Amino acid sequence: MEAVIRTVWREKGRLYIIDQRLLPDKEKTVELKNIRDVWSAIRNLSIRGAPAIGCVAAYGVALSALKTKTGDRKIFVKTVERDIKYLATSRPTAYNLFFALDRMEKVLKDAGNVSVAELKKRLADEADAIYEEDLKCCYKIGVNGASLIKNGMNVLTHCNAGALATSGFGTALSVFFVAKSKGKKFHVFVDETRPVLQGARLTAWELKKAGIPYTLICDNMAGYLMQQGKIDMAVTGADRIAANGDTANKIGTYSLAVLAHYHKVDFYVAAPFSTFDPCVKNGKGIVVEERGGDEVRNIRGVCLSPKDAPVYNPAFDITPAGLIKGFITENGIIKRPGFGTRD
Amino acid sequence: MEAVIRTVWREKGRLYIIDQRLLPDKEKTVELKNIRDVWSAIRNLSIRGAPAIGCVAAYGVALSALKTKTGDRKIFVKTVERDIKYLATSRPTAYNLFFALDRMEKVLKDAGNVSVAELKKRLADEADAIYEEDLKCCYKIGVNGASLIKNGMNVLTHCNAGALATSGFGTALSVFFVAKSKGKKFHVFVDETRPVLQGARLTAWELKKAGIPYTLICDNMAGYLMQQGKIDMAVTGADRIAANGDTANKIGTYSLAVLAHYHKVDFYVAAPFSTFDPCVKNGKGIVVEERGGDEVRNIRGVCLSPKDAPVYNPAFDITPAGLIKGFITENGIIKRPGFGTRD
Repeated sequence: MEAVIRTVWREKGRLYIIDQRLLPDKEKTVELKNIRDVWSAIRNLSIRGAPAIGCVAAYGVALSALKTKTGDRKIFVKTVERDIKYLATSRPTAYNLFFALDRMEKVLKDAGNVSVAELKKRLADEADAIYEEDLKCCYKIGVNGASLIKNGMNVLTHCNAGALATSGFGTALSVFFVAKSKGKKFHVFVDETRPVLQGARLTAWELKKAGIPYTLICDNMAGYLMQQGKIDMAVTGADRIAANGDTANKIGTYSLAVLAHYHKVDFYVAAPFSTFDPCVKNGKGIVVEERGGDEVRNIRGVCLSPKDAPVYNPAFDITPAGLIKGFITENGIIKRPGFGTRD
Repeated sequence: MEAVIRTVWREKGRLYIIDQRLLPDKEKTVELKNIRDVWSAIRNLSIRGAPAIGCVAAYGVALSALKTKTGDRKIFVKTVERDIKYLATSRPTAYNLFFALDRMEKVLKDAGNVSVAELKKRLADEADAIYEEDLKCCYKIGVNGASLIKNGMNVLTHCNAGALATSGFGTALSVFFVAKSKGKKFHVFVDETRPVLQGARLTAWELKKAGIPYTLICDNMAGYLMQQGKIDMAVTGADRIAANGDTANKIGTYSLAVLAHYHKVDFYVAAPFSTFDPCVKNGKGIVVEERGGDEVRNIRGVCLSPKDAPVYNPAFDITPAGLIKGFITENGIIKRPGFGTRD
């Protein structure tokens, strides 16, 4: 299985990423040469999207292991464990970062008394496994979701639930990539997704690269398109899904879901099972991160409002399960209400 | 009566405007010295908003008249008529531009055989009248709308239906200015209003200047605020209102109206009677201008998407009368359904 767009990859023992900060202007490949490079790439958003961060962190640990020259088992384990702890400080919220690092650490702990060479091999294999699992999972989401795409459809998406945010296949965008590979003819409307413009910058770029016809719109145009009957379906990703199906995703998703409901447009969420958080009963239990006002006041350094304008900038919103027609997962499409009802 | 914010004004025989292109970074007063300056100011959007354009055009004709040195009545009339025709070529759509120029021309036609000096006086008076009428009309809209504002309210607005778009009082914003002057305590959420950001650039600036507490948000955050019960009422302006109440206004207004409907938030449109177009039966008869893609792809020269991204960029949308709780006019609040039912 191959990535649609390579976000993070190993080649001849070296680790590479695309610097997402420069997209869509420049498609620049960057080699991450050591653990400090990996940490910085996560911290400064050269690589973003929870699954993608998990993959690069795992590869970072493997890189650290392969670069450690000692033959002393204890020193080796200490070095790698130190690097795992170090990577865990790169960003605070991405669940996949800690999940991936825990898996890498478990390899060390479960290894018994094997040689340093064997440990290196197992760590590299585990990083590959984390990457491959994400790729397969995303592909399955795509296959399941593609069944919903009919020829001639106009589908709307929000933010970037794409290859760039994952190992290289995406969740919502995987649906489009697989549908395209099956020869389906359809068109995607892309919400630009203020304030950080992941739709305009990343999703538009991915769809262009994949040769999928798309049209960029401002977020406030989606309702007018629906009114005109120009949207047949909406698909977004998810950041966290509560046990009852309430879904946290990029700000604007909730408005879109309400508009879809009003216009009787099917609204789907594409996400792997790992996004469902059984510890959170419903949307009320999900804490929504509020970010600084500069993201709204400025775009790429250009101030668009009074410099001291008070701003409200929630990064996410919560869409109640009742507005979601179904969850497109690697194990099939789960239709509301209630889980367990497979498509 | 005085403007809240002076958009266009005469002072000691000279004509001034604020260059709106530089807002909110710079508040620069520009003197329009001749008819060519007036034409350029309208054309290059130094002054925008249909009522404001009408006022500056009328003042421009008066300026042309006062500057014309001839004592020959025929030559004088010809010169002024030529300048009226010239100003009419500055922008194609603003209804108020043609309305104001027609009124100025009518002064010439109805004058009989009066002297050049008297003609100059009548033209100057007519320009003042056009300005004063707009000011009074906007103020009355404010007075009528202010009755809806209760202490502690959170009100949402979209785009800039403000002082800058009119003679200096605004329509939707006039409601806030008058409520503030009556000592009411309330807070305004301002949609930034992509793609041209009239909310972030102009409405935020006006509210700041007027000392009205406000918070700037991205357009896609309004629904989430309503879900949290943080919006009590929404008020926007209007570009054209059909006979049945269907309303054309800045893109995003329709989405807002649907969201308000879903959350049982009262949605009002503030507009003078002159915005109602009895020749248009309903929203289907209103042609929505589609603008170029660069407004969406770029912000102030910075490209935010693939450079060749296909874009859909309608400047307006149509909100069905059924979603509008009432029209705040200079003659009272008209409640749906159907006109004639006064508040």
